[in-house]
Amino acid sequence: MKSDLPQLMRTRNLDAILIIGPDGMGAANTAFTYFVNEAHVTSGLIIVKSDGSTHLVHHPMERDEAAHTDLNLINRAKYRMPDIIREFKGDRLKAESELIRRVLKDLNVTGRVGFYGAETVGKAFSLLKAIAADEYCEVVTEYEGDALSDAFKTKDARETELIRRSCGLTEQVIGATHDFLREHRHHISNETLFKSDGNPLTIGDLKAFIRRELAVQNLNSTDVIFAIGRDAAVPHSAGTLSDPIQLGKTIVFDIFPRGPGGYHADITRTWCLGYASDELIRAHQQVLQVHAAMEQMFDTQHETWEYQEAACRLFEAMGHTTISKNAGETNGYVHGLGHGFGLGVHESPAMSNQGLRPIEKLQPGTIFCNEPGLYYPDKGWGIRVEDDYWVSLTGKIERLTEFDR
Amino acid sequence: MKSDLPQLMRTRNLDAILIIGPDGMGAANTAFTYFVNEAHVTSGLIIVKSDGSTHLVHHPMERDEAAHTDLNLINRAKYRMPDIIREFKGDRLKAESELIRRVLKDLNVTGRVGFYGAETVGKAFSLLKAIAADEYCEVVTEYEGDALSDAFKTKDARETELIRRSCGLTEQVIGATHDFLREHRHHISNETLFKSDGNPLTIGDLKAFIRRELAVQNLNSTDVIFAIGRDAAVPHSAGTLSDPIQLGKTIVFDIFPRGPGGYHADITRTWCLGYASDELIRAHQQVLQVHAAMEQMFDTQHETWEYQEAACRLFEAMGHTTISKNAGETNGYVHGLGHGFGLGVHESPAMSNQGLRPIEKLQPGTIFCNEPGLYYPDKGWGIRVEDDYWVSLTGKIERLTEFDR
Repeated sequence: MKSDLPQLMRTRNLDAILIIGPDGMGAANTAFTYFVNEAHVTSGLIIVKSDGSTHLVHHPMERDEAAHTDLNLINRAKYRMPDIIREFKGDRLKAESELIRRVLKDLNVTGRVGFYGAETVGKAFSLLKAIAADEYCEVVTEYEGDALSDAFKTKDARETELIRRSCGLTEQVIGATHDFLREHRHHISNETLFKSDGNPLTIGDLKAFIRRELAVQNLNSTDVIFAIGRDAAVPHSAGTLSDPIQLGKTIVFDIFPRGPGGYHADITRTWCLGYASDELIRAHQQVLQVHAAMEQMFDTQHETWEYQEAACRLFEAMGHTTISKNAGETNGYVHGLGHGFGLGVHESPAMSNQGLRPIEKLQPGTIFCNEPGLYYPDKGWGIRVEDDYWVSLTGKIERLTEFDR
Repeated sequence: MKSDLPQLMRTRNLDAILIIGPDGMGAANTAFTYFVNEAHVTSGLIIVKSDGSTHLVHHPMERDEAAHTDLNLINRAKYRMPDIIREFKGDRLKAESELIRRVLKDLNVTGRVGFYGAETVGKAFSLLKAIAADEYCEVVTEYEGDALSDAFKTKDARETELIRRSCGLTEQVIGATHDFLREHRHHISNETLFKSDGNPLTIGDLKAFIRRELAVQNLNSTDVIFAIGRDAAVPHSAGTLSDPIQLGKTIVFDIFPRGPGGYHADITRTWCLGYASDELIRAHQQVLQVHAAMEQMFDTQHETWEYQEAACRLFEAMGHTTISKNAGETNGYVHGLGHGFGLGVHESPAMSNQGLRPIEKLQPGTIFCNEPGLYYPDKGWGIRVEDDYWVSLTGKIERLTEFDR
């Protein structure tokens, strides 16, 4: 969590962290959001010094929004960027490096600086090369396991509360969608749900309904998986808008919106309207069995790959193929068991098969999901059930999501 | 536009373009969206060869979504990434570079490769350094003016149609918001609009209404500026949720959602309910005068900085201060006149003061906005009017937005 950052910086011998906040990165710039919180600051530079003090160089037009953060504010206007650009004859790359040089100098930052934030790879690589060449600091980057990713692995009380709220609001949307489907139970013909205008109810209608309910709950989502039949059998198929909602087919509803403070929830339910074949009922029970067994197994002692391998063994004992043997497997259990989340939908720790990810354990403060599933594209069905969990400060596993499985 | 890409690559002597599509970048990865279009492909690698052929290495779980693109598909499962990771003893950076090496080899790509796409700066810098060290291709990056940014500067017929639709849908939201405010005209007391529940109508209520209307039109937006009074006087203040909607104060409503195919609109209107002081009426007319004068001036001959300097001269002749003289100016006309947009809200060309940006002109196919404004924080008001334009293939300037100014 954020309070671990000075220690995480010391471990890496970092004198400062510099987070770039270029225009246009929005929610993708989770490092930047981590510090500006709910404030509508869309661009700038954030500097975390080894003494823990944190500074925001903000655009003059965002001065009011910047004042809503708890950061030490520096109005970028003071650096007269237009003068710097003209000084470097319009070379904006050199000007940007010069701006950073002046900011770091004013904050008495020298030595090893860890660079964070999202950017296009062209700008990121060009800028960091230019800074390294200008030699006013040592450019430090890590591909994974960097200080911020490590801080993200556990959530503090404020973040946990925001994620609880995000989960609760998301369950409201799931509940409203459930009720919306039920409202159509008296308009069924040829195994198909119909609208009052006489047309079949489609995936597109459901997605439009879900969009409105997300807006009502102030959740933001560019993508929701609402997939029926064969689409449900391919884990990341988002669903085909023209598909009618029909009885007896599995519907995978996976919803992972961005909620309060930018924090996500990530919940999946699988529904089957009207009736389900014995095969589907059995498979759904098997998924719930693995889901429950994993919930029992979660603790702060196992390495996270052990959960995934255990889930594979359970599914294999039930007669299913898994990706444990063949990474390209498309039948049976074909993805990881779960992952951390927060400002990003996918954060560490990952629950992948052995040897694919750094060794990690669940820690007090970890927030993660548990999402076993079974997929049979040729049979036209898929099933996934996903809930979210918080590891309490005493190491107890607490489920954050309760909606009827 | 996209069809210029082979020529833009030849100019830069590029043998290929490689666009990374890491998980979590979403709408921020405009380079990736440019090629997958409406398909819900959230990760992968895109390779554009100098012969114009374009290839997508997609995740096996996204195979159905990938099939909705017009790209040549390569299922990543074929590279057995888990085996590569284990071969490199869990070093995922080396494994990722090795994956790219194998993909480029299979596509017979050698030589100069331009790298594109969005990523965290840590991962981007580490990965491109590793690829450069592996020496299987020459890593080419540009800070600005790269091949894709140049392609983005003009839009083809498909993109223009998508932006037209985005503008039209956004105007629907503006119209609904206008009508929603009007519905409250019989519930006014102490210069304040009231709801039927007896509480004042607030900026928060308006933002909730706008969110629902955006959802109805299938537009996505994390941020809308709906700012009244002093907030309206700071161009990027998003508005204070608890502020009541009151008569006689300017309301700046700037809305720039992501619509069909990921393409934005960007429109601003300034409203003043009930009445407006002579000062506000005069200032609004001045903004409209500059707006109209610029609309008359736009052509394919001027360099874009000339529009901004002309707008500054006009406002100065009306007695206002501008950022032309002082970049930190907060009174009068304090920002650029406009900018291109498309998959990003801000794209080239920029209309900034002289010497701050590369020399550019409007070209047939350019889509851009015109957004003059006046801001007086100490007087508690701001005014901005913004419309969108397309430069036709014969160089004619056509306005895309019509909502009552």
